[in-house]
Amino acid sequence: MSLASERASTATAVSPHPFDPIQPAEITLAVRILEAALPGIPLRYKRIDVNEPVKKDVIPYIEAERLRMPLPPKPTRVLYVMFHRLDTGAFLKALLNADTKSPIFIKELPREVQGPLDTDEVTEIEELCNRHPAVLAEIEKLKLPPGVTVCNDPWMYGTDTPDESRRLFQCFMYIVEVDHPQNNHYSLPCKFSPVFDATTMEFVRMDYLPGGADHQTAETSMWKPVKTIQYAHDLLDEPLRTDLKPYIVQQPEGASFSVDGNFVYWQKWRFRVGFNNREGLVLYNVTYDNRNIVYRLAVSEMTVPYADPRAPYHRKQAFDVGDCGFGVAANQLSLGCDCLGHIKYFDGCRTDAKGNPVTLKNVVCMHEQDNGLQHKHSNYRSDAATVVRNRQLVLQMICTVANYEYIFAYIFDQAANIELEVRATGILSTVPFDNENGATVPWGTNVGPGVMAPYHQHMFSLRIDPAIDGFNNTVYYEDSVPMPEDENNPYLVGYTTEQTVIKKSGTANTDVARHRVFKIRNDNVVNPITYKPVSYKLVTVPSQMLLVNPKAFGFKRAEFATKPIWVTQYRDEELYAAGEFTNQSRKADGVETWVQRNDSTENEDVVLWHTFGLTHNPRIEDFPVMPMEKISVMLRPDGFFTKNPALDVPASAQSFNKSTLHPEPVITSSCCSNISAGSKAKLYKRLD
Amino acid sequence: MSLASERASTATAVSPHPFDPIQPAEITLAVRILEAALPGIPLRYKRIDVNEPVKKDVIPYIEAERLRMPLPPKPTRVLYVMFHRLDTGAFLKALLNADTKSPIFIKELPREVQGPLDTDEVTEIEELCNRHPAVLAEIEKLKLPPGVTVCNDPWMYGTDTPDESRRLFQCFMYIVEVDHPQNNHYSLPCKFSPVFDATTMEFVRMDYLPGGADHQTAETSMWKPVKTIQYAHDLLDEPLRTDLKPYIVQQPEGASFSVDGNFVYWQKWRFRVGFNNREGLVLYNVTYDNRNIVYRLAVSEMTVPYADPRAPYHRKQAFDVGDCGFGVAANQLSLGCDCLGHIKYFDGCRTDAKGNPVTLKNVVCMHEQDNGLQHKHSNYRSDAATVVRNRQLVLQMICTVANYEYIFAYIFDQAANIELEVRATGILSTVPFDNENGATVPWGTNVGPGVMAPYHQHMFSLRIDPAIDGFNNTVYYEDSVPMPEDENNPYLVGYTTEQTVIKKSGTANTDVARHRVFKIRNDNVVNPITYKPVSYKLVTVPSQMLLVNPKAFGFKRAEFATKPIWVTQYRDEELYAAGEFTNQSRKADGVETWVQRNDSTENEDVVLWHTFGLTHNPRIEDFPVMPMEKISVMLRPDGFFTKNPALDVPASAQSFNKSTLHPEPVITSSCCSNISAGSKAKLYKRLD
Repeated sequence: MSLASERASTATAVSPHPFDPIQPAEITLAVRILEAALPGIPLRYKRIDVNEPVKKDVIPYIEAERLRMPLPPKPTRVLYVMFHRLDTGAFLKALLNADTKSPIFIKELPREVQGPLDTDEVTEIEELCNRHPAVLAEIEKLKLPPGVTVCNDPWMYGTDTPDESRRLFQCFMYIVEVDHPQNNHYSLPCKFSPVFDATTMEFVRMDYLPGGADHQTAETSMWKPVKTIQYAHDLLDEPLRTDLKPYIVQQPEGASFSVDGNFVYWQKWRFRVGFNNREGLVLYNVTYDNRNIVYRLAVSEMTVPYADPRAPYHRKQAFDVGDCGFGVAANQLSLGCDCLGHIKYFDGCRTDAKGNPVTLKNVVCMHEQDNGLQHKHSNYRSDAATVVRNRQLVLQMICTVANYEYIFAYIFDQAANIELEVRATGILSTVPFDNENGATVPWGTNVGPGVMAPYHQHMFSLRIDPAIDGFNNTVYYEDSVPMPEDENNPYLVGYTTEQTVIKKSGTANTDVARHRVFKIRNDNVVNPITYKPVSYKLVTVPSQMLLVNPKAFGFKRAEFATKPIWVTQYRDEELYAAGEFTNQSRKADGVETWVQRNDSTENEDVVLWHTFGLTHNPRIEDFPVMPMEKISVMLRPDGFFTKNPALDVPASAQSFNKSTLHPEPVITSSCCSNISAGSKAKLYKRLD
Repeated sequence: MSLASERASTATAVSPHPFDPIQPAEITLAVRILEAALPGIPLRYKRIDVNEPVKKDVIPYIEAERLRMPLPPKPTRVLYVMFHRLDTGAFLKALLNADTKSPIFIKELPREVQGPLDTDEVTEIEELCNRHPAVLAEIEKLKLPPGVTVCNDPWMYGTDTPDESRRLFQCFMYIVEVDHPQNNHYSLPCKFSPVFDATTMEFVRMDYLPGGADHQTAETSMWKPVKTIQYAHDLLDEPLRTDLKPYIVQQPEGASFSVDGNFVYWQKWRFRVGFNNREGLVLYNVTYDNRNIVYRLAVSEMTVPYADPRAPYHRKQAFDVGDCGFGVAANQLSLGCDCLGHIKYFDGCRTDAKGNPVTLKNVVCMHEQDNGLQHKHSNYRSDAATVVRNRQLVLQMICTVANYEYIFAYIFDQAANIELEVRATGILSTVPFDNENGATVPWGTNVGPGVMAPYHQHMFSLRIDPAIDGFNNTVYYEDSVPMPEDENNPYLVGYTTEQTVIKKSGTANTDVARHRVFKIRNDNVVNPITYKPVSYKLVTVPSQMLLVNPKAFGFKRAEFATKPIWVTQYRDEELYAAGEFTNQSRKADGVETWVQRNDSTENEDVVLWHTFGLTHNPRIEDFPVMPMEKISVMLRPDGFFTKNPALDVPASAQSFNKSTLHPEPVITSSCCSNISAGSKAKLYKRLD
């Protein structure tokens, strides 16, 4: 079938909503458009996705939806393609008009621009490394016992020189002591690390890793056997706990949400579930009780610089959004493992290297959860109480980036709050370290014999494109400060707030000592009771910013992580805090550049970027798999409504909740003889 | 029955564990001992409770329990009584030996010392105020319509003069527009506020409250009718939501915990549930896998200073622990309202003014909850995943302090973390404010017509008496700092940690910019892999400290709230951060005094006090009842174990969790005609 005839035949199909994720047929379409435009040239596809629609074209459409007016035409559907020409090795970007099925542009990118890793490429490098003679020669020197093998994790090659234009991978090598699909090779890191060129598929260099606490390296020598610290249940020495009883969430009438494609309606909230290869889960057009709250919400970037000062670890700085992509790293979830209750899953889609669509099944899950009490008051005179529970709607995505896992959950509640909860789990990135003699390093933690986990930071950028009762908003911060000692404050107890409006694009700091609160308001809509513009506050996570020296590449590449708050005037295509191309970048091309425009940001279409993070100095308890560490950011109405918006949530009642009472043991005051035989036996067993 | 014969007859009854809460019979016993010691003197009881047992006497007992050795004799059971002599009006404190049934001491306290409020007293003052002619005269001037009445909340009288020794109450008055047990009178505050002497029951003075934004007051005049903003469901104008589906937690095999009296065993945790009138819920002797973690854990104090600079609001500074008591304010919980699943309740006990024991039924609830994922890792090569959910054990207490509610939850998990989660909810303390004309104040928020909620702070002190693998511990803090630019840091990416040991009793600050982490270690026990002393970290809540001016009484009375971290050497009787008697105190007699001893706190029996809080500048959404605001502190192992202690928790599996899949709508690509009639109707209804 020719492209022309396909155009005709698909014309009657339902066209996607502007915020819908890419469909398999659109990947096929993009490949056909490119192959028609570049006939006969062998291409290798890295990424095919929807290009973000132009906001000014989308707004009339979604406002018509919200106001139930006749819909205007949909904005142009544009597809974004990153690919290589296999004849020249060039790296290209194309934008394609999916409606007219024709290219908008196809351009070759400069030699120093590297696209993100892709799944096929990582597999190719991994296999290349495993069979390369230089690597096999090192493995030979380990003189491994029978059954013990070596594997590798290819890493992006963090920039350490201004003139590198090869596409490089650093492979970290590990000993595989047990042949098991969940063997924890991170427990046994090797002391050599080859570098490969991913374009030419050539071996570049063998790096040797320090063995001790200094920068010294040595020739590879015989491996001294040491047992892997395993996490998989069937590889543990100790038995599993047997005293955990089932805990089942039942929703006999189903969930309280409704879903129509990627459109969700739950408890006065309406929004669209977006998904792309780079950011993964994105929320669009979030309204509450039919009032606009957020235009677009996503984790726009993330960087993980490591503190180990020694080569080649100074190059360990992953950009998990820009270099990898949370979308392509998202776990395909399964029922009953990652959430409880009544679950709805959403799929995503990516291309493979050949341009075939690959469905990413169940990459987002949605379910309700109970989060304890939302509000309660008892009248102490009458003892009459109003108790309302905090039912929440959770949209969750779990990303595996090699050793590590991030769990992102957007949580909506009935009091008009939106929370982003991030859980860090998975396996620490480890390095070899001869610690049998009691050695320690000041930049890491021994987590097992011969293995150390270096300190590192996880720095996230949450991009908030707000729409507080409209698309022109103002960001400001409010500090709580003592009132001066004067006649208005005769008893010296008074305190008040000071407001600072961010009038021009720029940055701001958090300030715990002043209880600094950031708010987004709509100057055009005044609350009839507070007499102040309607607003939402951003409950920030005040965090330590980037520790890397400003002169280092790691700083220049991730300037977004040097300030907690950035405000820019909205521009299409400005989506990613560290810029479009982060892999092997020399400097960022993101918020740090855009704020310099000195745009007006008062009562304008603004974007608020919040950088927050974890300085993660590993605990030994974080190994071999890490109990989650949780951080949470929230958007919370503050003068947006005229009273608690959850007042109309029905009360918590036993008839609805059906809780059960723990049986009381039957015990006389003198002895235990009256305990029923069963419960006594059980009690004794459990207390022993 | 004489006291002597009672001694004989009760000798065979089971004697309480040293950490058990007071029993009704012990209240009766205390009264009998005091009446025998003070024959013929009429007494009024304020508080009868267990006096904290002497730690050096308790340790051998609980260590023998832990090590399953023969038990030594129990420490002496001592009862604590606060009471008044009605003949002289004197306020007294007694300690009584419950084993020998005899007084240890009975002493009259200085005239300026005021005990906490008690339930009977508050009721008496409330009734006195309601019927007092001076109050009735003011009510008369309001010319209230038929059916509209007035009520009052008696408040403790925050100190504003150094020479007040009367026991005073400030009654805040409200208009009751609707006769309903949950009418929200806080919506309609009156502009007059009488002060009473609670000893003489005399009217002291009528205070008039400012009507506008300045300090001006006026004579009481006719009430201009305005509608109450109600929170109770049957008083709302709007209908309740009808689209919230049931969410039922089922535990068909019961809970995973075992309970024996107040002893609890759950998932390697063992502890005792303590409860007293002052702090309410207390945790004692917390061990994990039979290793000591904490000796005693409780919220030791809390203060709420208000920011409104005008009289008489400058006296609004509640000490909810010392002035009121979380134990006596604890809600008597009911099945299916305050928690879900399989619930165990614990009771408490208090005295009434006459010395009768009053059982406080169900003041603590305990249940398990699911908190999402604890850890997960997928091997990206094999896609094999280990998924472990985060089952938690929650001990919850909900306290109503007049208008406001606090929900305290101690949360244990399977990775050896203990979290204290505090939720603030209930009703804002409001003041009258003529805001119909668009007026606002810089120290509060309009929350309705004629009503304003002043800014305030909630400052909590969590007292941690640690026992990290033993009772001698050291507190230190660790900052993350860039490595210097030298030959050890050639690429400028290195960072490291700096430790500061708190060697002498004193204070420390939190420091987000340095990622300051506080840890408690045992210098006598070294982790065999990290080579560092075993430790737990305290995940603090960096908070704005007290805003009141250091010259004000509100500062001197609550110095604990001026620094986030205090470390003292353990002394018996040093339990409360602001001292034993806070009501109408002129200055504190707590941590700020004890740290001045300059005691050694390195490898000693130490106590760590963490002050954290909320600067609460009310949102209008916090009215008429506040969606909870949550803060959380955590004790988290850090080098205490040799690996993740939750590795042996069974995997999350559908066979155990029994989740259900959201049904997919049957939709053809061209139209919706194939949606089943029912689901289509439902979809349309919900999306409309």
